Amino acid sequence: MINKIQPKTLSGFMELLPNEQVLFNQMVDKIRASYEKFGFLPIDTPVIEASEVLLAKAGGETEKQLYSFTKGDSNLTLRFDLTVPLAKYVAEYYNQIAFPFRRYQIGKVYRGERAQRGRFREFYQCDIDVIGDGELNIINDAEIPAIMYTTFKSLGLENFSIHINNRKILNGLFEAANVKEKSVDIMRTIDKIEKIGKETVIAIFKDDYNMTEESINTIVNFIEIAGTTDEKIEKLQALDIENDLYKQGVEELKEVEKYIRLFSVPDENFEIDLSIARGLDYYTGTVYETFLNDYKSIGSICSGGRYNDLAGYYTDKQLPGVGMSIGLTRLFFILNDIGLIKTDKKSISEVLVVSMVEDLSKSIEVANALRNAGINAEVYFDNKKIKAKFKYADRLNVPYVIVIGEDEINSGPLTIKNMQEGTQEQLAVESIIEKLK
Amino acid sequence: MINKIQPKTLSGFMELLPNEQVLFNQMVDKIRASYEKFGFLPIDTPVIEASEVLLAKAGGETEKQLYSFTKGDSNLTLRFDLTVPLAKYVAEYYNQIAFPFRRYQIGKVYRGERAQRGRFREFYQCDIDVIGDGELNIINDAEIPAIMYTTFKSLGLENFSIHINNRKILNGLFEAANVKEKSVDIMRTIDKIEKIGKETVIAIFKDDYNMTEESINTIVNFIEIAGTTDEKIEKLQALDIENDLYKQGVEELKEVEKYIRLFSVPDENFEIDLSIARGLDYYTGTVYETFLNDYKSIGSICSGGRYNDLAGYYTDKQLPGVGMSIGLTRLFFILNDIGLIKTDKKSISEVLVVSMVEDLSKSIEVANALRNAGINAEVYFDNKKIKAKFKYADRLNVPYVIVIGEDEINSGPLTIKNMQEGTQEQLAVESIIEKLK
Repeated sequence: MINKIQPKTLSGFMELLPNEQVLFNQMVDKIRASYEKFGFLPIDTPVIEASEVLLAKAGGETEKQLYSFTKGDSNLTLRFDLTVPLAKYVAEYYNQIAFPFRRYQIGKVYRGERAQRGRFREFYQCDIDVIGDGELNIINDAEIPAIMYTTFKSLGLENFSIHINNRKILNGLFEAANVKEKSVDIMRTIDKIEKIGKETVIAIFKDDYNMTEESINTIVNFIEIAGTTDEKIEKLQALDIENDLYKQGVEELKEVEKYIRLFSVPDENFEIDLSIARGLDYYTGTVYETFLNDYKSIGSICSGGRYNDLAGYYTDKQLPGVGMSIGLTRLFFILNDIGLIKTDKKSISEVLVVSMVEDLSKSIEVANALRNAGINAEVYFDNKKIKAKFKYADRLNVPYVIVIGEDEINSGPLTIKNMQEGTQEQLAVESIIEKLK
Repeated sequence: MINKIQPKTLSGFMELLPNEQVLFNQMVDKIRASYEKFGFLPIDTPVIEASEVLLAKAGGETEKQLYSFTKGDSNLTLRFDLTVPLAKYVAEYYNQIAFPFRRYQIGKVYRGERAQRGRFREFYQCDIDVIGDGELNIINDAEIPAIMYTTFKSLGLENFSIHINNRKILNGLFEAANVKEKSVDIMRTIDKIEKIGKETVIAIFKDDYNMTEESINTIVNFIEIAGTTDEKIEKLQALDIENDLYKQGVEELKEVEKYIRLFSVPDENFEIDLSIARGLDYYTGTVYETFLNDYKSIGSICSGGRYNDLAGYYTDKQLPGVGMSIGLTRLFFILNDIGLIKTDKKSISEVLVVSMVEDLSKSIEVANALRNAGINAEVYFDNKKIKAKFKYADRLNVPYVIVIGEDEINSGPLTIKNMQEGTQEQLAVESIIEKLK
């Protein structure tokens, strides 16, 4: 006897049973349909790229997590996001692309992170970006949240909020308060305000960062801004911060707010959140994070923003863009965990055709008719006891079973059983097709 | 100035422009829909597996082409097909799977082949397999060609033929002729019969393989079998070869033929082809190859067959199966090359909304209405000349453009232009929705 190899999937790699895969694929389909509803074009880039190309920009944390290797005399790396491949793509095919270039890409990316529950080393990203050639209208910054809204609604989620900010406001504020070089620390401290309290934050500003009282006041007045979206914008304007970047940021935020409403995103699904910054060197304008209101601790489930320069490492062309990304593998894992996967269809087959007699001709004929009418149907071929056949139907989650016996073969009506309700009726094939369509 | 990195995609990796990607994705969608029509369940396995797991069975040519590397102390390999991952999956989740297990998988696989036109190192395989637990009904062998037929019809192909044989017939024949150990050479020689002629084949049998006259007669009588499907089966039976394996093979082929017709596959789309063998160690019964009749030199575009033992390297369970695979990347490349890509839709957006005025409120409102009705629509946001806007529409291949001017904003009907025909008409939004659905 040969020694058996243990059939084991690597840890950190999600692999689903078919019933779960059906739900996962439905999420992919809905995300894709939402992106296409806004006319985004698909692209598909290789999983493997030349390391030189993929790492033009990388560094720090990301680099440590890479899957890099050599093949022949080539240094290769598995993509770790879909943004760098997009930058390469746009620079490579610049002359063959129509701008603004609206693309989506749904694909797997690879990061060798420390394995832990809910963290994956191979995961799907679902990205959209709009890339302008030299310039890009601010309306695009408002359309992205509209697409987020459409996407999450299509996934059956209700109680979510798209948080919006503008990096120019933050950068302008820090410039105006003369604390530009401390902005990272200040943002990090502000982030903790709910936990440690306003007084402690002020103490840290004063003692640890040596900020002047004027600086501290400017920052504190800013972070105390509250109210509705419109009130926040009024208060941002009222702060009277003499900084062009700040003013431009507030103007952009106001424009984005106006257009988001024109795109019919309800007020309860978006808000201005002056505390979000999304890292510090990539984004240059509007930024987004999206939260499930009842599960805020999960963190953002969809993030993105505006950037000035997509592909500076590859080309001199100025290519500003705005986009967002859903980390689908993690989102599926979380929604599955908290029971928030909404689905209209739990199986691939609509009908399982089961025969009581050995001759399967009639069963195959019925399945042919269903399929020709566009209904997914399967015939159970094995010559087993009826109990085994129905057990199989149960495991498939199939909603209907058609039973074929002697009567049905002698051209009587067919027996169709509703597996959910346990009821059954006698119907001709045509009526069954009518019923299931 | 920073030195720019050249944005270059690796050779042997297909990367399409968006207009081509739209066509490619439609092919994927049609293949998937065909597989699901027969109730096959989706699975998605990792691209990366432990080398030990993936290479349990590999060897020879395949091993040289592998993308293998180490990460930490793990030896990893990118999957080179979807069959080994299926074997791992079925062995790993044996207790959680309902048998017969009907699965499809569409995904990328990796083989570092020598780069040449039409050969890809990263390519999509679209596989279906039915796996039995201990046994598997022969009807499954007839359903596979029915799925091939449905799939290729859905792709708009007409003139194709599914060639079917049974390995038991060949193996039994070689046993009966006492030339079992020379079967590989004999098959290879038979393959050349159209090129080198019958007399030369007989000479090779005699001189190079030292076959007896009786053996040669047995083989020659076999390869001369011709006629319709039914005639071929009659002649196979009439040959009166006293070998159980041979007889079993002929019986199976006869059964498969009977059921293929029950599945409504027309006679012109399948044929018995006694010359196909599909390699020599994996398949054990029915085998398939599929040809475009007008482009036979391309080779088989969809192959597969029956095997006794899917997962013997991982488990003692006997898991017979039957399946087939489409190498989609190559098929797309070929069909695109010979102009056989059939498509109903050349763009993602059905409509581009273009404004003649600066205020885009009405344009966005119209797009919202279209999207809510399920129509993919895009608004052109940039404030450019009308010529630039229509040039963009052309490059998108969008079938309709809606033009919004002052009249339309003052709640008149909208102007919709058919880009293919160059015609235009004035319609209310509701009528446009009606027209496009």
